[in-house]
Amino acid sequence: MPIPEIDPFHAISISALAHQLEQDGRSVIHLEFGQPSTPAPRAALARAHHVLDTDPMGYWESEALKVRIAAHYATAYGVSVAPERIVLTCGASAALVLAFCTQFVPGQRVALARPGYVAYRNTLRTLHIQPVEIACGPAERFQLTAGQLAVLDPAPAGVIVASPANPTGTILSGAELEDIARVCQERGISIISDEIYHGLSYTTPARTMLEYAPDALIINSFSKYFSMAPWRLGWLVVPEKLVGAARARMGNLFLPPSALSQHAALAAFECEEELQGHVATYRTNRDLFLKALPAMGLAHIAPPDGAFYIYADIRHLSDDSLTFCRDLLCDTGVATAPGLDFDPVDGRFYIRFSFAASTDRVQDAISRMIPWFQARMAAKSIKT
Amino acid sequence: MPIPEIDPFHAISISALAHQLEQDGRSVIHLEFGQPSTPAPRAALARAHHVLDTDPMGYWESEALKVRIAAHYATAYGVSVAPERIVLTCGASAALVLAFCTQFVPGQRVALARPGYVAYRNTLRTLHIQPVEIACGPAERFQLTAGQLAVLDPAPAGVIVASPANPTGTILSGAELEDIARVCQERGISIISDEIYHGLSYTTPARTMLEYAPDALIINSFSKYFSMAPWRLGWLVVPEKLVGAARARMGNLFLPPSALSQHAALAAFECEEELQGHVATYRTNRDLFLKALPAMGLAHIAPPDGAFYIYADIRHLSDDSLTFCRDLLCDTGVATAPGLDFDPVDGRFYIRFSFAASTDRVQDAISRMIPWFQARMAAKSIKT
Repeated sequence: MPIPEIDPFHAISISALAHQLEQDGRSVIHLEFGQPSTPAPRAALARAHHVLDTDPMGYWESEALKVRIAAHYATAYGVSVAPERIVLTCGASAALVLAFCTQFVPGQRVALARPGYVAYRNTLRTLHIQPVEIACGPAERFQLTAGQLAVLDPAPAGVIVASPANPTGTILSGAELEDIARVCQERGISIISDEIYHGLSYTTPARTMLEYAPDALIINSFSKYFSMAPWRLGWLVVPEKLVGAARARMGNLFLPPSALSQHAALAAFECEEELQGHVATYRTNRDLFLKALPAMGLAHIAPPDGAFYIYADIRHLSDDSLTFCRDLLCDTGVATAPGLDFDPVDGRFYIRFSFAASTDRVQDAISRMIPWFQARMAAKSIKT
Repeated sequence: MPIPEIDPFHAISISALAHQLEQDGRSVIHLEFGQPSTPAPRAALARAHHVLDTDPMGYWESEALKVRIAAHYATAYGVSVAPERIVLTCGASAALVLAFCTQFVPGQRVALARPGYVAYRNTLRTLHIQPVEIACGPAERFQLTAGQLAVLDPAPAGVIVASPANPTGTILSGAELEDIARVCQERGISIISDEIYHGLSYTTPARTMLEYAPDALIINSFSKYFSMAPWRLGWLVVPEKLVGAARARMGNLFLPPSALSQHAALAAFECEEELQGHVATYRTNRDLFLKALPAMGLAHIAPPDGAFYIYADIRHLSDDSLTFCRDLLCDTGVATAPGLDFDPVDGRFYIRFSFAASTDRVQDAISRMIPWFQARMAAKSIKT
């Protein structure tokens, strides 16, 4: 069994180039990563200041935070989750590792949509679990379907569902989640549901898989809606029967996450108005993009139901999204992510814009990109 | 390949009982966990306040911190480490996971001393790597020897070395590290060296394995000497040839650690005087323990060269260290860790005292424990 070769994040190389350009005095707009540009909510920052001043802190798990997260499942989705089923983790990344280690063993197969978040594939491979990537295009709204899962032969040990998804933003409806849950139930497929973009939806609110599959493992985090990405705090919901196994792994592989982040996160739950303001900004940014895409010649995008992404088909301009992103960055100062990060096969035809920046920055980026895309189109039509 | 059963930390159950007693109004002294009772250094706290006020933060790796850590290897050990060989992690726990995933595959065997830090064994097992525990008793100062490694048949893929060690505090001399490095070189054994307790030594300073095995993977953290355990920040040093593989795994499995913690940690490097004050406290606490042990009837302990632990043989009093720790806690309010966490075979004969608390608390704990141990001895001698 060889040590698997793991691809690097290409967006990181784009970002490194972007920072180099900035150091050289260029004006750069960062649309390459999926993180809010806003700080943690004010009350969370205030709470952090207070804790720094008054509490020496120690290894700690906030029972109050687990209770608050459990209450969130009751109010947001009408789902009852006992607080002890919630394992706090150093971000959704560690929650994914924990979920995989708790549920799967090397050699097993786990299905997932292609395109999808790069770390699913790479973390599975690092743990010697076999990713089974299922091509999902415009016809499936870039999402796995129950039908695809029903015909996979043999049935995989597990499936990763992501709604809203990265890099597309596509949301699965309640009916779609229900269909997937039913097929998984019938075929004995364990569900890992990544719900990290919940709270960020522009069409219909995202439902939790727990409503349809009570034994699903749920990944979530304070990184997106709560605007606390660099605080590295997430959580995993496990079914009652896996609480002992998951907690033993958490204690051994990770220990509890940052005590300060836990304190701040509890306060963040009380910042609904400020956080909804961020969502309103993302909605404005999304509208700006949707309005600009025709002028950029980008007619084919994934349905941007949620999250803060536009996943755009650029095959009329390039079959090498990494070079395309580099060119776009060097020419305009706008950093984006190549589809290659999310889809090793068709990703060369796509790029991802993150619209989590401020509206001013997004507007500026669009103004720079429209003439660039038009010039590319013109150059392409001369060549052909 | 079944999902491995992972033991829980028994010290966590002792700690939970201790907190329950406190809630019931009892006075409890916490000597069960290996964490400083002091907060982060003042300059680190000040830096954190400043960053909270001025920086929205984002996913981030501090190049300055990596440069500072690299400089530390030069000044403390005279070893040259390029900053890019340092991977910042969410604590030493994540660094261990990263080291194991980067260096080993399921089914391989990794040697380690028994007794040893519980997470070595459990993390290896979670990743389906086979721990090969080597019994190390008083004759070996509870540490792995080059001789033991030389005769292991077949040679393991790797070995975990820990100096100062947990739960014993024992330090390996330069000559011992050199011997181990030589055997590993000869037999093709990869070395993981856990140096998390460096900076905390009372006899002779601990040497880094990098002095003797330049390709060793080194684990370290801001949790112990730097008194920042709940900030969850550690690092892994990898050889040049593994930088790409380790960084790809870091990006996928973890993302960078807390941005705030990285800022604070850089400031912590400038707090030598304050941190040496903590070491002086630990030295005082250690002396208090060493003086008190005869009155407690504890004649056999591991050499407490470093860290902040006393690992004491209690077999004359009990062969069930978990029950013994519970009794000690319930009777005196002093929480300790059962040896069972560190040694599944002989650990029932040992308990671990952490002396990282304040000197007042340690003095108080000793005053409570001396009559309790004397009563136990008296009861035992009546029975026998």
